[in-house]
Amino acid sequence: MFGGVEAGGTKFVCAVGSGPDDVREQTRFGTTTPAETIARTIDFFRQAQQAHGPLTAIGIASFGPVDPDPRSSTWGFITTTPKPGWTQTDLAGPLRRALRVPVGFDTDVNVAALGEWQWGAGRGLGTLVYVTVGTGIGGGALVGGQMLHGLVHPEMGHLRIPHDRAADPFAGACPYHGDCLEGLASGPAIAARWGAAAETLPADHPAWALEAEYLALAMQNLVCTLSPERIVLGGGVMEQPQLLPLVRRRTVELLAGYVQSPAILANIDRYLVAPGLGNRSGMLGAIALAERQGESIVRTVLE
Amino acid sequence: MFGGVEAGGTKFVCAVGSGPDDVREQTRFGTTTPAETIARTIDFFRQAQQAHGPLTAIGIASFGPVDPDPRSSTWGFITTTPKPGWTQTDLAGPLRRALRVPVGFDTDVNVAALGEWQWGAGRGLGTLVYVTVGTGIGGGALVGGQMLHGLVHPEMGHLRIPHDRAADPFAGACPYHGDCLEGLASGPAIAARWGAAAETLPADHPAWALEAEYLALAMQNLVCTLSPERIVLGGGVMEQPQLLPLVRRRTVELLAGYVQSPAILANIDRYLVAPGLGNRSGMLGAIALAERQGESIVRTVLE
Repeated sequence: MFGGVEAGGTKFVCAVGSGPDDVREQTRFGTTTPAETIARTIDFFRQAQQAHGPLTAIGIASFGPVDPDPRSSTWGFITTTPKPGWTQTDLAGPLRRALRVPVGFDTDVNVAALGEWQWGAGRGLGTLVYVTVGTGIGGGALVGGQMLHGLVHPEMGHLRIPHDRAADPFAGACPYHGDCLEGLASGPAIAARWGAAAETLPADHPAWALEAEYLALAMQNLVCTLSPERIVLGGGVMEQPQLLPLVRRRTVELLAGYVQSPAILANIDRYLVAPGLGNRSGMLGAIALAERQGESIVRTVLE
Repeated sequence: MFGGVEAGGTKFVCAVGSGPDDVREQTRFGTTTPAETIARTIDFFRQAQQAHGPLTAIGIASFGPVDPDPRSSTWGFITTTPKPGWTQTDLAGPLRRALRVPVGFDTDVNVAALGEWQWGAGRGLGTLVYVTVGTGIGGGALVGGQMLHGLVHPEMGHLRIPHDRAADPFAGACPYHGDCLEGLASGPAIAARWGAAAETLPADHPAWALEAEYLALAMQNLVCTLSPERIVLGGGVMEQPQLLPLVRRRTVELLAGYVQSPAILANIDRYLVAPGLGNRSGMLGAIALAERQGESIVRTVLE
């Protein structure tokens, strides 16, 4: 039995189970102060352990930026988030100490990529990208079955893309970069540009072709950099059913035949896809991450 | 003793040796027809084997696009290159058959990244990017010590970046994408924009600030996607000594403090760097790739 935490800036989802068909218990609550939110998380797992037996490990999929480096003194921290009260918050440490179980910790999008790789739309692939388009834009990646870290972790929402100010005079909403991808194409950017919430705009509104343009430019950049075998597009904005087909068509047009792969030229519908786990990629990914913690313990004991 | 081939669109460099301090013999010749160029490569290694003893393996760093997938029937091929006569050319197969040695094969830039990781500016890093800026722009990456492939291989030259046509009306020189990174910032793009070869433009020419702007936008995109621990910038255009400092400064400005890593905020001079192997990254990387072939044979035999 494993625990999973999807720690979002708006809400926390906590669950215990072992996979998509075996979620024994689940709860969600609003993200308030760190002390209150972490205490509530610990309470959930304490009660869940009494009901379902001991947990082998817990995985956390966290909003960020975070420190996912196990060698670092601030491993498990949410670091420079603009979210009030949460800067430099130790999230993994209190859970590990209170519940006395191994804890895996990574970005929400890296863990969602892991969930999709383990049980969803990315099963068996060597290189997978997961992008969420919602209140913010973020992306995570698996390369050779491992979540990508490097210097820190990917920040795919802050890609720079072409912005034709004649066609779209909106200056962009990112406090750091103005018209980066997130600044142009997040839910709040759409709302600020058009003066109405994204989900209230009709399917034939010009907002969607423009949105598809920006997301397709980002897809080109991801293809040219990570060369993923598939890209999963999740998040609230992607729930507009007209959007994903527009992004697919425009990505193929933009790449212009340069990347000669049947996956793009003939099978774009299977290359750019919706999450196989619906809105559970993060929560289930957190359980998958917990299972990896368990495996690494077994390996250590055996060695 | 290992063989290395840096197979460029303009010239081939062939060498035998075991590392930067042990290159026993080396030759370079112009890239003509595939038949003639491959025959000359085979001749070099045959003569080298007579002089220096048998080779354990050969590594090839090839211009592309290529097929680096060992499971593919066109493994070792240069695929859709616009270079006349070279489309769908089997490069690795003839060497393997004629010389009867294992052959490693990858893109010139992935192999240059490997060379820098093994002996140059990227030693010991988990995630390294190598970008060349010259006749074309390309980039390769190592993640966890392995060259990045995924769907095909990275095509970092074809990143889409912002292009302010008011400041720079040049339409871009890429036959596929117009004003992608390569279309705006390769050597030929600089020459076409300013009407003079890049190397003839003085150090205070406005060409260099514009070039640094485009390259810094690409650096931001690489940081936000691969989160590399270091980026090595090579190629003919980067030999302008004023350029790298401009790229460093502008990259820090563009990231605007969002990626909170001392590597970027305090040590950009060690984050964006020139090749540790000078112009030998590709050739030495090919030897490193050959050594990996040798190791995998030893592993197979032991298993």
